[in-house]
Amino acid sequence: MMSDLNVLTLSDALAQAAGEVEQALGDLLPVPDGAEARVVHAMRYAVLGGGKRMRAFMVMETATLFGVDRRCAARVAAAVEMLHAYSLVHDDLPAMDDDDVRRGKPSTHKAFDEATAILAGDALQTRAFEVLAEHDTHSNADARCELVLALAAASGARGMVGGQMIDIDAEGKTLTADEIGRLQALKTGRLIQFSAEAGAILGRANQMQRHLLASYGRDVGAAFQIADDILDVEGTAEDVGKATGKDAAAGKATLVAILGLDRARAQADALSVQAASHLDSFGDKAAHLRALAALVVARKS
Amino acid sequence: MMSDLNVLTLSDALAQAAGEVEQALGDLLPVPDGAEARVVHAMRYAVLGGGKRMRAFMVMETATLFGVDRRCAARVAAAVEMLHAYSLVHDDLPAMDDDDVRRGKPSTHKAFDEATAILAGDALQTRAFEVLAEHDTHSNADARCELVLALAAASGARGMVGGQMIDIDAEGKTLTADEIGRLQALKTGRLIQFSAEAGAILGRANQMQRHLLASYGRDVGAAFQIADDILDVEGTAEDVGKATGKDAAAGKATLVAILGLDRARAQADALSVQAASHLDSFGDKAAHLRALAALVVARKS
Repeated sequence: MMSDLNVLTLSDALAQAAGEVEQALGDLLPVPDGAEARVVHAMRYAVLGGGKRMRAFMVMETATLFGVDRRCAARVAAAVEMLHAYSLVHDDLPAMDDDDVRRGKPSTHKAFDEATAILAGDALQTRAFEVLAEHDTHSNADARCELVLALAAASGARGMVGGQMIDIDAEGKTLTADEIGRLQALKTGRLIQFSAEAGAILGRANQMQRHLLASYGRDVGAAFQIADDILDVEGTAEDVGKATGKDAAAGKATLVAILGLDRARAQADALSVQAASHLDSFGDKAAHLRALAALVVARKS
Repeated sequence: MMSDLNVLTLSDALAQAAGEVEQALGDLLPVPDGAEARVVHAMRYAVLGGGKRMRAFMVMETATLFGVDRRCAARVAAAVEMLHAYSLVHDDLPAMDDDDVRRGKPSTHKAFDEATAILAGDALQTRAFEVLAEHDTHSNADARCELVLALAAASGARGMVGGQMIDIDAEGKTLTADEIGRLQALKTGRLIQFSAEAGAILGRANQMQRHLLASYGRDVGAAFQIADDILDVEGTAEDVGKATGKDAAAGKATLVAILGLDRARAQADALSVQAASHLDSFGDKAAHLRALAALVVARKS
């Protein structure tokens, strides 16, 4: 599916973008004097040095299509990672998913405490919107407002938080494949879609270009989620003696449970191909984005 | 200090602004179809029909100084109330202050559940920034970005959330009067200051006017907080048989505990007078704002 050269190139590009966003995140979250430093330490703990940075990479790569200054793109990428990190910090809380481990280290409420984790998540969200509205992100205030609006739509009650609400409500219920698709589109898909649209907003692209990149993001997000569910099931099947997968244990419906592994894998592959098809008009400049669409369904972790 | 006529006028103006912001909040938080409706119901529960709406009133009144359309001002007032409500919802959580009652009814996590309350607070914050960035709030995108930036600075780790972190860290410690002043300036003062500045941002006022209104807001906020602490102590002294005040019970340092009731009351009165003095150049149009500065130290609840 991908040549070794492409894999290497994508891998290098992922590492480069991760390095740039890590630098931006560190710069954007300076530790203040005073007792409030604790919440900033928790914010930095939650967002620095972890994750695949797929969302950040999509911002950087779609911005590249329009020749956007990489330092501006890295700020938007950092904002998306802050938003994503806030959602993970709150998701891991005892009252939510009650996860003690995140990205191989203690989750934020375990490393600090629950109150600090709630506040750190809150302030990460605040900082994400603040960074988008700052002049250094784009010289045009209309573009900055569009970024704020698009991120808010992706992450609020009609987006990510709405998806989390549906997810909580769905525990123990039987959802149809369509309902699961909608849940996942809101919970994780909308933020990934924003990440792909962000480059178009930064680049003042026309509506068609923005729509194509949003469609790419939507399909990559959907493929990513199914691949995630497959990994959850396969990890279980392989490690005999371990309890059932996390989703099954939590009574959470997944497309894999409804469609079965083979059909789910076929659907993820089809979404990956469809995602890449939205990039045709962008030519060779979109090679990394195409490779990413292939990677999300081929990954093993 | 205030004539009966002024009290009546202020009371009418407060009621009018409260009505307008209630209407705006209802309009800005439509309930969607689907299971995500639950989080929007919780958001509406947390923000509608309660509170003194002092912050909203300050937005409306400072906007009036510059002839801003009241519907635009009401949107910003609604955004401030959403931000304030989110902070109360998260503050009331068991891992934070663990309060079961808010504004005379069950707090959001009691009326719904903890997970829903966390999500509702999260989405109220998102919606606050979204409303500020929307075109209907101001035709000028620079003004909208300024609103986002000012609210973020007031409410994030360098503002309200930072103050909450200091407050948590301070439990059981002995703070100086200066340290308490800084804690309260961050925790509650900065958002009140933003509420007073918002009218100047909406009205594209000059820097001096914006600075004067910010100073007014800062001083009203400080006076309000001391008056709150005095009420906490006096409520206790009067209701014999009841345990000590909530702050004392929580081991929280207040200026009243350090300065004593008389000096604390004198300081609140001085701040109230100082707040009003920043309004001199605005003439009669600022009468309600002057009356508000007097009210916050004269109130009995």
